[in-house]
Amino acid sequence: MNMITDYTYEEYLEKIQSFHGHLAPGLIIGGFMVDLAMKNLPPGEFFDVICETGNCLPDAVQLLTPCTVGNGWLKIIDVGRFALSFYDKYSGKGVRVYIDRERLAAWPAIYEWFMKLKPKKEQDSSALFGQIKEAGSSILGMSPLLIKRDFLGKKSSGPVGPCPSCGEPYPLNQGGICGGCSGRLPYAEE
Amino acid sequence: MNMITDYTYEEYLEKIQSFHGHLAPGLIIGGFMVDLAMKNLPPGEFFDVICETGNCLPDAVQLLTPCTVGNGWLKIIDVGRFALSFYDKYSGKGVRVYIDRERLAAWPAIYEWFMKLKPKKEQDSSALFGQIKEAGSSILGMSPLLIKRDFLGKKSSGPVGPCPSCGEPYPLNQGGICGGCSGRLPYAEE
Repeated sequence: MNMITDYTYEEYLEKIQSFHGHLAPGLIIGGFMVDLAMKNLPPGEFFDVICETGNCLPDAVQLLTPCTVGNGWLKIIDVGRFALSFYDKYSGKGVRVYIDRERLAAWPAIYEWFMKLKPKKEQDSSALFGQIKEAGSSILGMSPLLIKRDFLGKKSSGPVGPCPSCGEPYPLNQGGICGGCSGRLPYAEE
Repeated sequence: MNMITDYTYEEYLEKIQSFHGHLAPGLIIGGFMVDLAMKNLPPGEFFDVICETGNCLPDAVQLLTPCTVGNGWLKIIDVGRFALSFYDKYSGKGVRVYIDRERLAAWPAIYEWFMKLKPKKEQDSSALFGQIKEAGSSILGMSPLLIKRDFLGKKSSGPVGPCPSCGEPYPLNQGGICGGCSGRLPYAEE
């Protein structure tokens, strides 16, 4: 049976609907990616995850693993590639799973969607979802991975103090005033 | 009763445990923050959220609202302030909820934890959790907010093509090679 970690395909679709709000094609493929990565992890007790895109894929990780954005075990480093890396948090050894463009070419509806070859409204969504289910993990590639040592381990954000401008606490090592007061937020008025 | 959106306090703690893995103090306070923001939203059909920190708070939003990192309705702009903004996705009008340091001073265990005045192992965690539950939303501040117009609306990531270095598809407007190949990822080997 077409299982995605501990869930049937249909159960996973229900989880997507409930958490993500709609059945995004990338999130379904993301389920197969998480499943493949977890089955190929090197031995180790704890793993962390990096998503190479902020689109859809982080939600597959959050739905299927203990790693969330808020607990810090999932990090998003958005380089725009639809790929993720699972690695042991101590050794840094792991696997990277990505969409293999050559394998994807066998599935024209997925290929068109993924490479953005057609405007959304011209896509054949029933062919797209059908091919995603049928293709499963066959469109994925995987390679071993080693994370740089200085990226591993929990970084302390250092001492906290009130921002001299807004008065709210912020990590003092961010500078003389907080990032909110230095204009990093898109607020016209606060 | 001490409700957090549609959940009792105890139900919310169970949701935290299941999604986040442990009862993080910040995530409990985050529940009160989300609840306060949602009760004070200006009229409108759809809202988006900005978290001003990546620690804990994004998970409160993901647990209690339809907004997730992967569906794009929750954005994290990490300026290190424990605050969040809910706003109408069309008008940009909304509210910002933050921890009010003066009000917090009435709750010494929360104050010590929040201002990092004591090492974790010296904290009195039963006092901390007791005060968080008792304080509820009384430690929060709220202000109206307007999001800058150019931040609103969905941005297209533009055309996609294969990276000339790794061959994987990436948004071409990111540059001549993808961010993975230009060294933005902490990979020693791939």
